[in-house]
Amino acid sequence: MEGNMEGSIVRVTVPAGAEDGYEVRIGSGLLARIPAEVAVLLPGARPFVVTDANLREAGHLAAMAGEAFEDVYSIDPPGETSKTIETVEKIIDAMEQKRFGRDTVVLALGGGTVGDVAGFAAAIYKRGVPCVQIPTTTVAQADSAIGGKTGVDSRLSKNAYGAFHNPVRVYVDCATLKTLSERDYRAGLVESVKHGMIMDAEYFEYIESHMDGILARDDAALLHLAEKNCAIKGHVVAEDPKEQGLRRILNYGHTIGHAVESLSGYALLHGEAVAIGIVGACRIGEALGTGTGETTSRARTVLEKLGMPEAIEGISKEPILDTMRRDKKSVGGQARFVLVRDIGETDPAGGGYAVEVPATVIEETLSELGAG
Amino acid sequence: MEGNMEGSIVRVTVPAGAEDGYEVRIGSGLLARIPAEVAVLLPGARPFVVTDANLREAGHLAAMAGEAFEDVYSIDPPGETSKTIETVEKIIDAMEQKRFGRDTVVLALGGGTVGDVAGFAAAIYKRGVPCVQIPTTTVAQADSAIGGKTGVDSRLSKNAYGAFHNPVRVYVDCATLKTLSERDYRAGLVESVKHGMIMDAEYFEYIESHMDGILARDDAALLHLAEKNCAIKGHVVAEDPKEQGLRRILNYGHTIGHAVESLSGYALLHGEAVAIGIVGACRIGEALGTGTGETTSRARTVLEKLGMPEAIEGISKEPILDTMRRDKKSVGGQARFVLVRDIGETDPAGGGYAVEVPATVIEETLSELGAG
Repeated sequence: MEGNMEGSIVRVTVPAGAEDGYEVRIGSGLLARIPAEVAVLLPGARPFVVTDANLREAGHLAAMAGEAFEDVYSIDPPGETSKTIETVEKIIDAMEQKRFGRDTVVLALGGGTVGDVAGFAAAIYKRGVPCVQIPTTTVAQADSAIGGKTGVDSRLSKNAYGAFHNPVRVYVDCATLKTLSERDYRAGLVESVKHGMIMDAEYFEYIESHMDGILARDDAALLHLAEKNCAIKGHVVAEDPKEQGLRRILNYGHTIGHAVESLSGYALLHGEAVAIGIVGACRIGEALGTGTGETTSRARTVLEKLGMPEAIEGISKEPILDTMRRDKKSVGGQARFVLVRDIGETDPAGGGYAVEVPATVIEETLSELGAG
Repeated sequence: MEGNMEGSIVRVTVPAGAEDGYEVRIGSGLLARIPAEVAVLLPGARPFVVTDANLREAGHLAAMAGEAFEDVYSIDPPGETSKTIETVEKIIDAMEQKRFGRDTVVLALGGGTVGDVAGFAAAIYKRGVPCVQIPTTTVAQADSAIGGKTGVDSRLSKNAYGAFHNPVRVYVDCATLKTLSERDYRAGLVESVKHGMIMDAEYFEYIESHMDGILARDDAALLHLAEKNCAIKGHVVAEDPKEQGLRRILNYGHTIGHAVESLSGYALLHGEAVAIGIVGACRIGEALGTGTGETTSRARTVLEKLGMPEAIEGISKEPILDTMRRDKKSVGGQARFVLVRDIGETDPAGGGYAVEVPATVIEETLSELGAG
């Protein structure tokens, strides 16, 4: 403390957190062993399950919980429209009603919405309780369940509310993917395509050459995708947990993607919107001369095989531009884009990984994508 | 990654946070220099002020912001009843309406409610933006603005929602205390008495021997209190940021205190309730033979000079006992107490700092304090 009659300064130190981490357990048919393993991981903790009607109907809740858990909150209706602060309040109210204390562990069993909502509720309940993520969709297994991002939307924007709250463990059970609708299954694979494009040309080639097995949901293909996705996502978030640099590459395809997803009123699934965004990012790269036509063409081919939409339908340019200006990568109200130079190689853009793009290039690209 | 046909485990590492900290700048008449200093601390950040009508009326908002800030949210009505998730939603909505991004810095100008609500809004806005705490009451300057605890109440319990979110800086401007009501001013000094009792006999003696200057709000006395409070609180939270041991001593007087504060329907101010709790903790120490009559007597004398209530009025024992069982230090539904052995010396209780007390002793103490 340095002091004088005028005042003084006290410095409060915040001790460094110990280096730590968590396991992602990958396999097929893992659900039944989760309760016992969590009891070993967090002795004495009271589990509270957050899930939704789809998971109940598919039998996954019963496969995991059996008769063991009475404390279950089902998000209703399932899906993106329930990703709100009101849902978080209902979950916290349910935990309080049952007197769940700081010894709670939240088990998030479901897709991206369940993981985001339950993870955020765990992050802010009594200043934070642990959360186990059990993603059951292609998109959640590849992306959202790993890395500690949690959050819910406001009426104005996605993830207006959120926190970084790492899970204490993640279970990726490929068997849960077999009950997924064809459309959800395919849309979620776009995150795998994204991983290949931004970081791993060999992985992209695997997807190109194993499309039949992937679409047939063969166990070997599912396990390989899960391992590659978790390794890539795990590597990126370990390098840059708070998204101050490298982690931004995971937003590849998401600038246009988020905007059209939201403006479609969520008629487009996340992966479908990101597929359009990936093609858009490829076209921007070509226009700037940093990307190649071959990259665009290979991306298009894979996304077509997945049955992804190739154009923006029924949304005009102005609202897309306006929404993109509110994107988190925006600087001074100007959208920035993650771009790849080649399959597997993201443009580092001086370490920021987000490239400033002239407004005319963005508008042209949106026109090419079919925006009115 | 270890893999086989059955599945595999990927370990995600979470890098250790760098040791870090923040400054508490203490003085008299600091408000006007805050905008310029924050601009140096966080170049390019857009300040958003959260305050309330009391601060506006006292002229402190104008003293700080002048014409510089257009972006101000006033919590309405001021005080504890607005410490809700609804207020947080309104603040976040206001920031979104004005397109505040991740480059936001929240300036929390006010008492404990403003600090808790604004700090929590900053913690969860777009997964966390920085917050500068500018506490303007004796209780907030001594306690709540330092240490990173933020949160709001649910209809069932206090701080049901919350996060640990350290401020990037704290400004303790003693001049703001001069506009405080006599009752608020005095009640907030109980946290200073608490600091002396749990950690610093010399500080307690200073309060005993400088009571006239303190009550007259002399600059020299106010600056000395601020420095001691910040040094003690800063030391404790640096040793134990997540309240796993030492930090519990800050709950001295709060077990009975929180219960009677809440059961009075907040007719008792926080400090008034804690004053009763401190006397209660002294009596419990005497009954257990770990404290002394002299400690009780010195505590009583100082609290009387501050004009604090000496007895519990109009609240009966049963609801107090019931509320204390829900206290966060409870184990197996049994309340535990932070106790001092002597002025300045907390009972370490084996490193847990919370002593198990027989139910009969608690009941007797509540009777002595006047609970019906």
